[in-house]
Amino acid sequence: MIDGRILRGLSRRGLVLMAGAAGVALASPRRLLAASPASGAAPDLAEVKAAVERQRPEAIKRLQDWIALPSIAAEGRNVQEGARYMAELLKDAGFQNQTIIQTDGRPGVFATMDNGAARTVGMYFMYDVKQFDPAEWSSPPLEGRIVEKTGLGKVLIGRGAVNQKGPEATFLAALHALRAAGRKPPVNLVLVAEGEEEIGSPHFGQVVHRPEVLAALKKCHEVWMPFAAQSPTGGVEVDLGAKGLIEVELVCTTKAWGRGALDDIHSSFKAELDSPVWRLVKALSTLTSEDGNDPAIDGWFEHVKPLTARQKQIIAEDVAKNPEADRKKFMGVQTWVRDLPYRDALERLASQPTVNIEGMFAGYTGPGGKTVLPSKATAKLDFRLVPDQTAAEAERKLRAHLAKRGYGDISVTVTGGYDPTQTEESSALIQSSLAVYRQAGLDVSLSPRLAGSWPGYIFTGPPVSLPAGHFGFGHGSRQHAPDEYYVIEAEHPKLRGMAGATLGYVEFLYALAAS
Amino acid sequence: MIDGRILRGLSRRGLVLMAGAAGVALASPRRLLAASPASGAAPDLAEVKAAVERQRPEAIKRLQDWIALPSIAAEGRNVQEGARYMAELLKDAGFQNQTIIQTDGRPGVFATMDNGAARTVGMYFMYDVKQFDPAEWSSPPLEGRIVEKTGLGKVLIGRGAVNQKGPEATFLAALHALRAAGRKPPVNLVLVAEGEEEIGSPHFGQVVHRPEVLAALKKCHEVWMPFAAQSPTGGVEVDLGAKGLIEVELVCTTKAWGRGALDDIHSSFKAELDSPVWRLVKALSTLTSEDGNDPAIDGWFEHVKPLTARQKQIIAEDVAKNPEADRKKFMGVQTWVRDLPYRDALERLASQPTVNIEGMFAGYTGPGGKTVLPSKATAKLDFRLVPDQTAAEAERKLRAHLAKRGYGDISVTVTGGYDPTQTEESSALIQSSLAVYRQAGLDVSLSPRLAGSWPGYIFTGPPVSLPAGHFGFGHGSRQHAPDEYYVIEAEHPKLRGMAGATLGYVEFLYALAAS
Repeated sequence: MIDGRILRGLSRRGLVLMAGAAGVALASPRRLLAASPASGAAPDLAEVKAAVERQRPEAIKRLQDWIALPSIAAEGRNVQEGARYMAELLKDAGFQNQTIIQTDGRPGVFATMDNGAARTVGMYFMYDVKQFDPAEWSSPPLEGRIVEKTGLGKVLIGRGAVNQKGPEATFLAALHALRAAGRKPPVNLVLVAEGEEEIGSPHFGQVVHRPEVLAALKKCHEVWMPFAAQSPTGGVEVDLGAKGLIEVELVCTTKAWGRGALDDIHSSFKAELDSPVWRLVKALSTLTSEDGNDPAIDGWFEHVKPLTARQKQIIAEDVAKNPEADRKKFMGVQTWVRDLPYRDALERLASQPTVNIEGMFAGYTGPGGKTVLPSKATAKLDFRLVPDQTAAEAERKLRAHLAKRGYGDISVTVTGGYDPTQTEESSALIQSSLAVYRQAGLDVSLSPRLAGSWPGYIFTGPPVSLPAGHFGFGHGSRQHAPDEYYVIEAEHPKLRGMAGATLGYVEFLYALAAS
Repeated sequence: MIDGRILRGLSRRGLVLMAGAAGVALASPRRLLAASPASGAAPDLAEVKAAVERQRPEAIKRLQDWIALPSIAAEGRNVQEGARYMAELLKDAGFQNQTIIQTDGRPGVFATMDNGAARTVGMYFMYDVKQFDPAEWSSPPLEGRIVEKTGLGKVLIGRGAVNQKGPEATFLAALHALRAAGRKPPVNLVLVAEGEEEIGSPHFGQVVHRPEVLAALKKCHEVWMPFAAQSPTGGVEVDLGAKGLIEVELVCTTKAWGRGALDDIHSSFKAELDSPVWRLVKALSTLTSEDGNDPAIDGWFEHVKPLTARQKQIIAEDVAKNPEADRKKFMGVQTWVRDLPYRDALERLASQPTVNIEGMFAGYTGPGGKTVLPSKATAKLDFRLVPDQTAAEAERKLRAHLAKRGYGDISVTVTGGYDPTQTEESSALIQSSLAVYRQAGLDVSLSPRLAGSWPGYIFTGPPVSLPAGHFGFGHGSRQHAPDEYYVIEAEHPKLRGMAGATLGYVEFLYALAAS
């Protein structure tokens, strides 16, 4: 739900490549790193590659079996089963220790894999998936059926296919392939998984901040998450950070207000009775500028940092390389806010906090009309945050703003929140990612900050305070939507399918080991 | 849908009686009118009463069969079938002519019954019913099952039971009983029926304004509608008018606006893209005062007439007789707007136009959140109108108000509209109603104006320009809701069941004949 990864399918990088940039053919994974094993970098991966090829069927089967057990936090579905399954998958992949950690919400999983290596690398997994309605799917969402998709190749269709079981299962396949090739992974691994990402990771801190988990993470230099980062034509964008977020439900009821009628009543009584729908409309209206584009909550900009010169430079490079018209067309955009020039729009996207109404409802919403005066009105909002805002600060200021205007009875339920997260461009995580992508011949671009959000702050913020990000070859899309898919065999020469992405994770581990 | 009758179950009169006023027992219908047949008033009704008793089973069966054929304008269900069935029912009841009149919407029915009487009386029927969801009902909504209801007696449960098939079938039973007793009705009848009342009678004018219908109505002194006017304890309130209404759907889309993204898009893009949800919220906010209680649309009060001294007197009498606390309790009301004293609240109810949000929706409305920037937002509003506002004026002023503020792209769809309607207290219709109710020993009160709405303006306004209103004994409730019911056999001695109400219609026809 609170999901920056969804954005990748819409990345600027993806756009320009889809618009026709030619690329050097990379028909199959190949040896990418020249350094010898003695240097600590990747040795010849021919045996690993052979193992990946050999294990293709079981790797796909592993992903399909996992998809068949959807763990959905919002529905309380397969909560404990999902955690146990996650732990089993990690055990099978060679993790020596796997602990299910109960929280006040859904459990997390903590696992470690000591390979006697010099470097220890932190990893983040999520085992939950988004809700789905099978009626909307072209093939059963829990089947993981493999079908041809025009322009992409063979894709696996299923809930969690790309968000996030596909990339994660692909990483596990890399560990299986290393073992099958008689190799130990070149780094030790510390992995934390959660089952509540799709509801905003409300209890993930309870997992990460456990003393034994913190102690294990202290040995790490970074934390990363497997991710299908490629556009359909193979390009990748590496984000140096992400906005934070709080998701909030505002509910106005006559009961809490103490005015009007307790239940819905015939609308003719409006002349003598207050309406909580009007109250919510008026309260909402105070939260933004008249055009709805700037937050107008008291003190909201107190800790908002402007973009750095380097961040502006990255955006300027993007503008120079990627035509505005392509992105507008891809996204179906008619205009940027306030008719801004493209560069200004991109700077806003990276730098500005937002208040968005993601949903609202009250009263009668069916066909035609129904003359009712509702007793309740609801709005679902998301507030994107930028450094140095925090989720806690945002919630506190929102509540204070409403209370100051007499709207203290409107209930404010924060259903999820992330602080912003930022990682240094110079970190081994970012530099290793860039190196592996570039050695694969990909068109790589940087983004100063993802406008979306992910729980990276749990790692970049105290007490962990490590660089955190995503890495991975491969492609998928329709996260949260029907027919979510993950590319198993890619058509475009620069795009890697599941086997190529598997090898990519091996390459990445060796790159990190060499850092 | 646009339905003042729904209010009757909540009438002030009903309230005080429910709160315990004792009444003279009226265990069974009896001879009510002393005047001799020679005077033109009611003769001895013993034979008619016997026929009513004899015909009870077939009268109930007639209602049940009618309920089994729901004509629902909003769903396009049984449109022609409903009109044909209506015509058949009228034919069976003795109307000599029945014509189905096609319109641009659903057909109406025009019927006449010449009894060689001195006076011709106009009548209004509706044959359509409100939508329903069988899953919400305790017995099948199309079965018309008769069950015991605590405190009321035997009630018939079904869609249309009280709104409006029950009272209408009871009136038809009165015509059947008269014939069985060898009597001709003491008045001639001109009847117009529609199949779109529940969607706001959008094409009923096309029926009423047909030359042959107008010519027939010109012979009438009034138009009335059968109605179960009694509270559970037998009291009745006679309304001298009703507010008008327009129901409007406002839809704001990025497409019509020409801004933002054409489709729903990930909410992280809010920083660079306009939101139609914010736009609708801001536009709505301009329509009322800050507390949502006064319309703030340009020129809205131009033709609003204050209450007359007589209207205020009627309200003052009501306040004196009926405790505020009872009505608050019955309606579940915590406070009146602006903490007004009761009398002021009732004067507002009768005199003030309103803007109500009956429903609104946008984006994601399921459990939890979904980080979407919607491309569309919808609000359903109803605007209650008072004399001398008109529905056409209200629509025009609403459009002008929005356009003036730059919201001309927000689509305004008027799904139904009624002008206000008002009938003279001195008219034969009102005086006959009061006389029959009082002769039955009922506690009768007046209301200057129903806050709800009904299409009476089609008769009270030009070119028909006749008094129009409702009349009828009996009780029912839960109009538009599950388990809609109509009392067949009443427990309370002052409340008439279906047979008593049947005789009441006979009494009323004789009273009109004598006017």
